[in-house]
Amino acid sequence: MGSRGRAGYGPGMDPLATGLEGADLRDYLSACREGVLAELRARLPPDGPRTGGLYGLVLDYPLRDAKALRPALAVATARALGASMDLVLPSALTLELYHNAFLVHDDVEDASELRRGQPTLHRAHGVAVAMNVGDAMLALTLGPLLENMETVGLSRALRVLSVVERMARESAEGQAIELDWIRRNAWDLGPTDYFRMVWKKTAWYTFIAPVTVGAIVAGLDAARTRQLQWFAGTLGLAFQVQDDLLSLEGAVADTGKEEGGDLWEGKRTLMLLHALRVATPAARARGLEALARERAADAALPAQLAAWVEAGRLDAGLRVALEGALTQGRGFRTAADVEVLRALIEESGARAVAREAALVRAERARRQLTRIASWMPPSPHRDLLAGLVAFVVGRDR
Amino acid sequence: MGSRGRAGYGPGMDPLATGLEGADLRDYLSACREGVLAELRARLPPDGPRTGGLYGLVLDYPLRDAKALRPALAVATARALGASMDLVLPSALTLELYHNAFLVHDDVEDASELRRGQPTLHRAHGVAVAMNVGDAMLALTLGPLLENMETVGLSRALRVLSVVERMARESAEGQAIELDWIRRNAWDLGPTDYFRMVWKKTAWYTFIAPVTVGAIVAGLDAARTRQLQWFAGTLGLAFQVQDDLLSLEGAVADTGKEEGGDLWEGKRTLMLLHALRVATPAARARGLEALARERAADAALPAQLAAWVEAGRLDAGLRVALEGALTQGRGFRTAADVEVLRALIEESGARAVAREAALVRAERARRQLTRIASWMPPSPHRDLLAGLVAFVVGRDR
Repeated sequence: MGSRGRAGYGPGMDPLATGLEGADLRDYLSACREGVLAELRARLPPDGPRTGGLYGLVLDYPLRDAKALRPALAVATARALGASMDLVLPSALTLELYHNAFLVHDDVEDASELRRGQPTLHRAHGVAVAMNVGDAMLALTLGPLLENMETVGLSRALRVLSVVERMARESAEGQAIELDWIRRNAWDLGPTDYFRMVWKKTAWYTFIAPVTVGAIVAGLDAARTRQLQWFAGTLGLAFQVQDDLLSLEGAVADTGKEEGGDLWEGKRTLMLLHALRVATPAARARGLEALARERAADAALPAQLAAWVEAGRLDAGLRVALEGALTQGRGFRTAADVEVLRALIEESGARAVAREAALVRAERARRQLTRIASWMPPSPHRDLLAGLVAFVVGRDR
Repeated sequence: MGSRGRAGYGPGMDPLATGLEGADLRDYLSACREGVLAELRARLPPDGPRTGGLYGLVLDYPLRDAKALRPALAVATARALGASMDLVLPSALTLELYHNAFLVHDDVEDASELRRGQPTLHRAHGVAVAMNVGDAMLALTLGPLLENMETVGLSRALRVLSVVERMARESAEGQAIELDWIRRNAWDLGPTDYFRMVWKKTAWYTFIAPVTVGAIVAGLDAARTRQLQWFAGTLGLAFQVQDDLLSLEGAVADTGKEEGGDLWEGKRTLMLLHALRVATPAARARGLEALARERAADAALPAQLAAWVEAGRLDAGLRVALEGALTQGRGFRTAADVEVLRALIEESGARAVAREAALVRAERARRQLTRIASWMPPSPHRDLLAGLVAFVVGRDR
């Protein structure tokens, strides 16, 4: 961790010119990830038949290759403000456990097949096991928060706990907003709707909560903490738009998720909303028709049928007949539907619009960090925050 | 609430002779339930499109008719020890929210159709909404625990938080043990295995945690708190055995669940384990064969197919063909399988064995409460604890 071989800090230079990148950035993220994993391992109760193998499964997702953005944001903020890594790691672990619990539960909800390039937990062990592992992760978030009382002091520990409570509510509300759109088949949504949902669903727990926790642990005042929160939230919006772009473009190998998964899910992305808004009435109608069809994931049926055919439990001909019957009427979204949506997006120039929206927000975050740099002294940790601005919109996974 | 028309307290009489029953018991439970619901309503953020209707859904299960055992145990323990109802209600709400989150998630895992006589949340609103509502309930558990810091004081608030953390872990471990048995198709299990699982999965969060929280809020010492915990845990074992008996006997109207649901699920109950243990080798083999078949709930397919037929999206003949194909080979558990298991239980006398096991544990709990009554002064609240002992094994729902 550090800024090996980079220029030193001087009073006259752009305070953000030394942002970490490439191997330096990866080393920093990786060190934070290792720190959090060590913290998790040290806290897991002993595993075995008496716990039904629960804690081995709790480690599954965290041990898969991941960026560990949340721990890095918490650690870098705390350390840039003078706190030690040890002081912030328990809170960072709580955030990482929430993240992994959300991943496990989201994968069940979306009937996803892959997570970080491997079968999702519910595909490997069943829905009941996956849901229980997610609940166990949430149970384990409380231990580090309790320990904080002794390490960072009562007042800061209570404020961290309060931020975690807010974070959990914001995420659930963001998720509820998105699910409400799906239930109402709502597509008449603008960028403001989209960004409000993303702020709650993703930016809060991935960006705002980590920097807030780091700031609290380091004893930062409320006004400066708000500056950091705005920086983080804005970067979070850029992050999600980039994530949506990657989902549209990416192959499995890069993102560890299914290609075009968002289109299969009918997810409200900035691109899709833009494409529907600017499309001709006829093209828009075709798009809405494709989107009105049910997500196959709601029933997880196609994958289930395929698995049964593979296992010799279902005649292949019967499967074809069944799928044919099911896709008559409203039916399931098909590959042809996904292609309609993909074409709609390409023709509308939505990709460029989204790219621009991400860059604008990353630039806002960069300017905010310049202001923050007037009181946050230069350090490799501040460089990590600066490096993340470029990373968030430049990454390819 | 109170012991209207009952004999007063005197030094010479059996301290538990005044246990609440009938209308008095119901009034006490009902007052605790109302108190917790008021507490919940007062804390819910405003609902609307900006929260995707989340908080209305959070209220759904709690507003359905329920016994509110957990709040009553916490309230009665605290008040019997001299604390006020206000002081314990926030912690009681946290326990009730956990309980409802478990119900919502369990219903998804088990693909249950009914909960408290109405469609389960995931049947009414989809799996994704249900899972998010469960997660939102867990998020809301933190607020009351934070508020405790001001109302019951720091030290007790931290101990309550610590008990909640332990409770969440115990429940997840108990659930993991049961799921591990299912995964391994393990049936060579004795009463010790069964009760160890139940202690973690049910007794901890339904009985032990509530009385512990009540004791902490009231400032009870550790040794006496342990006496209460043993009382509560033992009563919890009796409660679960009674619950299993009711599931076997009960119709939908009484339990609000499907009839014989445990047999359909292949749940390890004391009755089924006993029946398998004492059966002839041939009968045991028939039972294990029925149990080896997959729970239909794992795929939720039969219900899904029925719904599609009903909605005119699937030809009824094709449904029959498909179900026939699927139940060849290992297939799904059928009504005939459930009858095999039911007969196995009836022939083994397992019902009487389980009834006896419940009564023995209720009697142990009663004797423990007699010891507790040497330091817990008489009150309607102690009478509630005494009344619950009889209620737990006498209830028919």
